[in-house]
Amino acid sequence: MREVAIIGVGMTKWGELWEKSLRTIFVETALLAMDDAGVDHLDSIYVGSMSSGLFVGQEHIASLLADYLGQIPVPATRIESACASGGLALRAGFIEVASGLSDIVLVGGVEKMTDLSGYEATYALGTAADQEYEGYHGITFPGLYALIARAHMEKYGTTREQLAMVAVKNHNNGSKNPLAQFPMKITVEDVLNSVLVADPLRVLDCSPITDGAAAAILCPLELARKMKKPVIKIIGSGHATDTIALNSRRDLTWIQSTYEAARRAYAMADKKPEDIDFVEVHDCFTIAEICVLEALGLVERGKGGRAVEEGYTSLEGKIPVNTSGGLKAKGHPVGATGVAQVVEVVKQLREEAGERQVKNARIGMTQNMGGSGGSSVVHIFERE
Amino acid sequence: MREVAIIGVGMTKWGELWEKSLRTIFVETALLAMDDAGVDHLDSIYVGSMSSGLFVGQEHIASLLADYLGQIPVPATRIESACASGGLALRAGFIEVASGLSDIVLVGGVEKMTDLSGYEATYALGTAADQEYEGYHGITFPGLYALIARAHMEKYGTTREQLAMVAVKNHNNGSKNPLAQFPMKITVEDVLNSVLVADPLRVLDCSPITDGAAAAILCPLELARKMKKPVIKIIGSGHATDTIALNSRRDLTWIQSTYEAARRAYAMADKKPEDIDFVEVHDCFTIAEICVLEALGLVERGKGGRAVEEGYTSLEGKIPVNTSGGLKAKGHPVGATGVAQVVEVVKQLREEAGERQVKNARIGMTQNMGGSGGSSVVHIFERE
Repeated sequence: MREVAIIGVGMTKWGELWEKSLRTIFVETALLAMDDAGVDHLDSIYVGSMSSGLFVGQEHIASLLADYLGQIPVPATRIESACASGGLALRAGFIEVASGLSDIVLVGGVEKMTDLSGYEATYALGTAADQEYEGYHGITFPGLYALIARAHMEKYGTTREQLAMVAVKNHNNGSKNPLAQFPMKITVEDVLNSVLVADPLRVLDCSPITDGAAAAILCPLELARKMKKPVIKIIGSGHATDTIALNSRRDLTWIQSTYEAARRAYAMADKKPEDIDFVEVHDCFTIAEICVLEALGLVERGKGGRAVEEGYTSLEGKIPVNTSGGLKAKGHPVGATGVAQVVEVVKQLREEAGERQVKNARIGMTQNMGGSGGSSVVHIFERE
Repeated sequence: MREVAIIGVGMTKWGELWEKSLRTIFVETALLAMDDAGVDHLDSIYVGSMSSGLFVGQEHIASLLADYLGQIPVPATRIESACASGGLALRAGFIEVASGLSDIVLVGGVEKMTDLSGYEATYALGTAADQEYEGYHGITFPGLYALIARAHMEKYGTTREQLAMVAVKNHNNGSKNPLAQFPMKITVEDVLNSVLVADPLRVLDCSPITDGAAAAILCPLELARKMKKPVIKIIGSGHATDTIALNSRRDLTWIQSTYEAARRAYAMADKKPEDIDFVEVHDCFTIAEICVLEALGLVERGKGGRAVEEGYTSLEGKIPVNTSGGLKAKGHPVGATGVAQVVEVVKQLREEAGERQVKNARIGMTQNMGGSGGSSVVHIFERE
């Protein structure tokens, strides 16, 4: 397998983009990435999108987007794995470049979610859960993650305040990211006083509904070395599945697919958790970030809440987590999220992250997950 | 890139499978393929499905199916490119094995379409077209292909009877396939007297709404040579896109994405159209088969209708087309179709096709397409 690098990234401002359609949002973003990479042709395109069918009534979007990007007849493939669609699109692009089949590959993610009512969007998102054993009984994602939160609080003594501190940290980071949907700072009190969604989770524990896209350009390492930008290598890629229904899990607090995907990524990269300088993780709910840090081996099992409280994961901490603002503050256009994580990691590794720059960042990691952990994708990146 | 072979295939009877859910249909089929290959573990799974979100309210199906197949934490990825989802899943599996990342890869396709009303299914299928420029104006797929048929009749003198002969041939082949949804023979008169759907297309020009799945197991060629079954190599893989909206095409009768995908597949395989012994093509409507034969270079441009009339594409003809019965008689569970084509090619190349066996079949081809040709995937297979 050939070594693979990222030579360009792109992202536009996320939010409720009612004046733009899915194709417009994607094309604007992809053009930014192509411009950043300095390429005008592509060999292949991968697009992560969770449910363009339910959100905007449009399947077959990879061809549509290749067309509107002016790239037909270039092969274009849509990848879906619920909220892990973007991370998995990156992996597909990585495999194609590594295989030797293609040199310049665009990996994008996009979701246009705000054209639906809240009820309809909640239904669409619910299709990431097991419809026959979860959805049928009326539970939606805030409820599923509330069950995880309750279990973590019971088992490890994680506190309601610690959950809130995840949101506070991520909004603090997000306030330094001009592309974030909700770039305002919040306090623990704000979280605790916000509307209850599914006990113990309140609205400020939840990532928002967002329209947005993100894109990256991959190429073989040898080619990247001839480009002008700093060389950012993809040194590890791991992907794993778990039951998509929570009721089939042995331990609600443990995200086995993330553990397994990370194990594979660490092995490929020949790195350990202590080698990682910073990480973008899938904080769709505050409790998710806590569980994920444990599954990635970055903090001890059961100590995720305490790590946040002690500032271990803050911008100045031992391992900054979600410097972009995370899904919480940056927004969560589900299929785009996994690619946006890569955008952040590349910006950090290039030292282009402005106010939120992590000092001496050399190795970064992304963790993107589908549903309540039915799928996880982990990548490790290194600046050469 | 490593060479890749197919060591197992599986398919169950297609039809209106109201007593089975999507996961059951898929798992039964995947187990048949694993049994055929003689493997009990997988390194990776790809699943093609066009719109499980709209058809059964379930996204995130790759993880779901990995779980129900007893294969978690194995990586599982869903691929979507409308009705080309299955063929594109095969290509993704091919790339992964070729890259060296995985050895044993399951490629499946599945669609559960009959849980919806006809109106709802037509809407779901319509999401393969451009929703803003085609769907919005009320056109659905029979209408789009009717436009193509009219244009072909005008430009090349293709007759209404020639269209019917495609259906007659495919039903004749399908009558020899015990897994086909509609294994009955029909006559030209039956087609001409059937209900008008979108002039000039009648209901017997259209492929049906179907529940079904298909599966294949890929591995490196070297490993396949150690197995007991005949070695079936994938020697060519091509994928290309075109505008998904028909109104953006220069010539309605020419499927450029199929031409381009075939060009790439022929180049990889180092083969020409005259080297191909038989082919499974995407006859979603009778006119589609005619256009596709031309784009594949198997018949001269404009002569597709005449080729069918002259028996060139019949089971005993120069190049048998759709020996399985095609989408027309076998059924068209959209995401599964591209993989089912591979099942037929492997059965033919192994000389396991029974009554519909093509004599001296050594090189076979599949052509799978999304929408009205917005995407096409072509593969070439050779028995070693």
